[in-house]
Amino acid sequence: MWKLGVKPMSETNAVLIGRKPVMNYVLACITSFHGGAKEVSVKARGKAISRAIDVVEVVRRRFLPDVKVSKIGIGTDQLPSQEGNQASNVSTIEITLRR
Amino acid sequence: MWKLGVKPMSETNAVLIGRKPVMNYVLACITSFHGGAKEVSVKARGKAISRAIDVVEVVRRRFLPDVKVSKIGIGTDQLPSQEGNQASNVSTIEITLRR
Repeated sequence: MWKLGVKPMSETNAVLIGRKPVMNYVLACITSFHGGAKEVSVKARGKAISRAIDVVEVVRRRFLPDVKVSKIGIGTDQLPSQEGNQASNVSTIEITLRR
Repeated sequence: MWKLGVKPMSETNAVLIGRKPVMNYVLACITSFHGGAKEVSVKARGKAISRAIDVVEVVRRRFLPDVKVSKIGIGTDQLPSQEGNQASNVSTIEITLRR
Protein backbone atom coordinates (compact mmCIF):
# COMPACT_ATOMS: atom_id res chain seq x y z
CA MET A 1 0.00 0.00 0.00
CA TRP A 2 2.23 2.81 -1.23
CA LYS A 3 -0.22 4.42 -3.58
CA LEU A 4 -0.67 8.17 -4.00
CA GLY A 5 2.13 8.99 -1.62
CA VAL A 6 0.07 7.95 1.38
CA LYS A 7 2.27 6.21 3.94
CA PRO A 8 0.36 3.94 6.31
CA MET A 9 3.25 3.77 8.75
CA SER A 10 1.61 5.80 11.50
CA GLU A 11 -2.00 5.92 12.64
CA THR A 12 -2.39 9.51 11.45
CA ASN A 13 -1.82 10.47 7.84
CA ALA A 14 -1.56 14.03 6.55
CA VAL A 15 -3.06 15.19 3.27
CA LEU A 16 -1.66 18.56 2.22
CA ILE A 17 -4.05 20.49 -0.02
CA GLY A 18 -2.58 22.31 -3.03
CA ARG A 19 -3.91 23.46 -6.38
CA LYS A 20 -5.00 20.13 -7.84
CA PRO A 21 -8.68 19.25 -8.30
CA VAL A 22 -10.67 18.45 -5.15
CA MET A 23 -11.18 14.83 -6.17
CA ASN A 24 -7.42 14.12 -6.12
CA TYR A 25 -7.31 14.93 -2.41
CA VAL A 26 -10.60 13.14 -1.72
CA LEU A 27 -9.05 10.00 -3.20
CA ALA A 28 -5.92 10.46 -1.06
CA CYS A 29 -8.10 10.62 2.09
CA ILE A 30 -10.15 7.56 1.12
CA THR A 31 -7.02 5.57 0.25
CA SER A 32 -5.51 6.48 3.59
CA PHE A 33 -8.57 5.31 5.54
CA HIS A 34 -8.78 2.12 3.49
CA GLY A 35 -5.11 1.53 4.26
CA GLY A 36 -5.96 1.32 7.93
CA ALA A 37 -5.54 4.87 9.17
CA LYS A 38 -7.69 5.83 12.15
CA GLU A 39 -7.15 9.53 11.57
CA VAL A 40 -6.44 11.66 8.54
CA SER A 41 -5.26 15.23 8.95
CA VAL A 42 -6.20 17.59 6.09
CA LYS A 43 -3.90 20.63 6.01
CA ALA A 44 -4.00 23.76 3.86
CA ARG A 45 -2.92 27.36 3.85
CA GLY A 46 -3.86 30.54 2.04
CA LYS A 47 -6.35 30.24 -0.78
CA ALA A 48 -6.27 26.44 -0.60
CA ILE A 49 -8.18 26.57 2.70
CA SER A 50 -11.58 26.65 1.00
CA ARG A 51 -10.56 23.63 -1.07
CA ALA A 52 -9.65 21.78 2.13
CA ILE A 53 -13.22 22.27 3.41
CA ASP A 54 -14.55 21.04 0.05
CA VAL A 55 -12.40 17.89 0.36
CA VAL A 56 -13.62 17.15 3.89
CA GLU A 57 -17.27 17.71 2.96
CA VAL A 58 -17.06 15.44 -0.10
CA VAL A 59 -15.28 12.69 1.85
CA ARG A 60 -17.80 12.54 4.67
CA ARG A 61 -20.98 13.30 2.73
CA ARG A 62 -20.47 11.30 -0.43
CA PHE A 63 -17.99 8.53 0.35
CA LEU A 64 -17.38 7.80 4.03
CA PRO A 65 -20.41 8.73 6.19
CA ASP A 66 -18.81 7.11 9.25
CA VAL A 67 -15.95 9.63 9.19
CA LYS A 68 -16.35 12.50 11.65
CA VAL A 69 -14.56 15.83 11.98
CA SER A 70 -12.82 15.43 15.34
CA LYS A 71 -10.89 18.71 15.43
CA ILE A 72 -10.43 21.92 13.45
CA GLY A 73 -7.50 24.22 14.16
CA ILE A 74 -6.56 27.52 12.54
CA GLY A 75 -3.31 29.44 12.73
CA THR A 76 -0.81 31.68 10.99
CA ASP A 77 2.46 30.81 9.25
CA GLN A 78 5.11 33.41 8.60
CA LEU A 79 6.62 33.34 5.14
CA PRO A 80 10.02 35.00 4.63
CA SER A 81 9.73 37.40 1.72
CA GLN A 82 12.03 36.93 -1.25
CA GLU A 83 13.21 40.54 -1.31
CA GLY A 84 14.34 40.56 2.29
CA ASN A 85 11.48 42.83 3.27
CA GLN A 86 8.90 42.28 5.98
CA ALA A 87 7.76 38.67 6.36
CA SER A 88 4.23 38.02 5.13
CA ASN A 89 1.63 36.05 7.07
CA VAL A 90 -0.51 33.28 5.67
CA SER A 91 -3.45 31.63 7.41
CA THR A 92 -3.51 27.88 7.92
CA ILE A 93 -6.10 25.24 8.74
CA GLU A 94 -5.81 21.67 9.96
CA ILE A 95 -8.89 19.46 9.96
CA THR A 96 -8.61 16.09 11.68
CA LEU A 97 -10.92 13.36 10.39
CA ARG A 98 -11.53 10.30 12.53
CA ARG A 99 -13.15 7.06 11.55
CA MET B 1 -24.39 52.00 17.95
CA TRP B 2 -25.64 51.16 14.48
CA LYS B 3 -22.35 51.43 12.67
CA LEU B 4 -21.19 49.07 9.94
CA GLY B 5 -24.41 47.10 10.02
CA VAL B 6 -23.51 45.50 13.34
CA LYS B 7 -26.59 45.22 15.54
CA PRO B 8 -25.75 44.91 19.24
CA MET B 9 -29.23 43.69 20.09
CA SER B 10 -28.24 40.16 20.98
CA GLU B 11 -25.15 38.82 22.73
CA THR B 12 -23.95 37.14 19.55
CA ASN B 13 -23.27 39.12 16.39
CA ALA B 14 -22.70 37.63 12.98
CA VAL B 15 -20.14 38.97 10.51
CA LEU B 16 -20.71 37.58 7.03
CA ILE B 17 -17.53 37.53 4.93
CA GLY B 18 -17.78 38.60 1.29
CA ARG B 19 -15.39 40.05 -1.26
CA LYS B 20 -14.35 43.24 0.52
CA PRO B 21 -10.83 43.70 1.96
CA VAL B 22 -10.01 41.73 5.12
CA MET B 23 -9.70 44.90 7.21
CA ASN B 24 -13.36 45.83 6.63
CA TYR B 25 -14.46 42.63 8.35
CA VAL B 26 -11.79 42.94 11.06
CA LEU B 27 -13.23 46.38 11.88
CA ALA B 28 -16.76 44.94 11.98
CA CYS B 29 -15.63 42.30 14.52
CA ILE B 30 -13.81 44.83 16.69
CA THR B 31 -16.77 47.24 16.61
CA SER B 32 -19.05 44.42 17.64
CA PHE B 33 -16.91 43.45 20.64
CA HIS B 34 -16.50 47.10 21.66
CA GLY B 35 -20.30 47.41 21.46
CA GLY B 36 -20.60 44.84 24.22
CA ALA B 37 -20.92 41.56 22.34
CA LYS B 38 -19.65 38.50 24.20
CA GLU B 39 -19.51 36.43 21.04
CA VAL B 40 -18.98 37.21 17.38
CA SER B 41 -19.75 34.61 14.73
CA VAL B 42 -17.70 34.90 11.52
CA LYS B 43 -19.44 33.15 8.62
CA ALA B 44 -18.32 32.52 5.06
CA ARG B 45 -18.85 30.19 2.17
CA GLY B 46 -17.01 29.14 -0.97
CA LYS B 47 -13.85 31.05 -1.79
CA ALA B 48 -14.48 33.56 1.00
CA ILE B 49 -13.63 30.86 3.57
CA SER B 50 -9.90 31.57 3.44
CA ARG B 51 -10.64 35.27 3.98
CA ALA B 52 -12.70 34.37 7.06
CA ILE B 53 -9.65 32.66 8.59
CA ASP B 54 -7.55 35.74 7.74
CA VAL B 55 -10.09 37.96 9.54
CA VAL B 56 -10.08 35.79 12.66
CA GLU B 57 -6.28 35.62 12.76
CA VAL B 58 -5.86 39.39 12.38
CA VAL B 59 -8.50 40.12 15.05
CA ARG B 60 -6.98 37.89 17.69
CA ARG B 61 -3.28 38.35 16.89
CA ARG B 62 -3.08 42.03 16.15
CA PHE B 63 -6.02 43.71 17.87
CA LEU B 64 -7.80 41.67 20.55
CA PRO B 65 -5.47 39.10 22.15
CA ASP B 66 -8.11 38.24 24.77
CA VAL B 67 -10.44 36.91 22.09
CA LYS B 68 -10.44 33.12 21.71
CA VAL B 69 -11.79 30.83 19.03
CA SER B 70 -14.48 28.93 20.91
CA LYS B 71 -15.93 26.86 18.06
CA ILE B 72 -15.34 26.11 14.37
CA GLY B 73 -18.02 24.40 12.32
CA ILE B 74 -18.00 23.41 8.67
CA GLY B 75 -20.87 22.37 6.44
CA THR B 76 -22.43 22.40 2.99
CA ASP B 77 -25.11 24.67 1.53
CA GLN B 78 -27.08 23.67 -1.52
CA LEU B 79 -27.47 26.37 -4.13
CA PRO B 80 -30.32 26.02 -6.63
CA SER B 81 -28.85 26.39 -10.11
CA GLN B 82 -30.21 29.10 -12.35
CA GLU B 83 -30.77 26.81 -15.33
CA GLY B 84 -32.93 24.37 -13.39
CA ASN B 85 -30.24 21.74 -13.52
CA GLN B 86 -28.68 19.88 -10.62
CA ALA B 87 -28.20 21.95 -7.49
CA SER B 88 -24.59 22.85 -6.75
CA ASN B 89 -22.98 22.48 -3.34
CA VAL B 90 -20.91 25.14 -1.62
CA SER B 91 -18.86 24.63 1.54
CA THR B 92 -19.45 26.84 4.56
CA ILE B 93 -17.58 27.75 7.73
CA GLU B 94 -18.69 29.37 10.96
CA ILE B 95 -16.05 30.50 13.47
CA THR B 96 -17.29 31.64 16.86
CA LEU B 97 -15.08 34.14 18.68
CA ARG B 98 -15.55 34.66 22.41
CA ARG B 99 -14.13 37.37 24.59
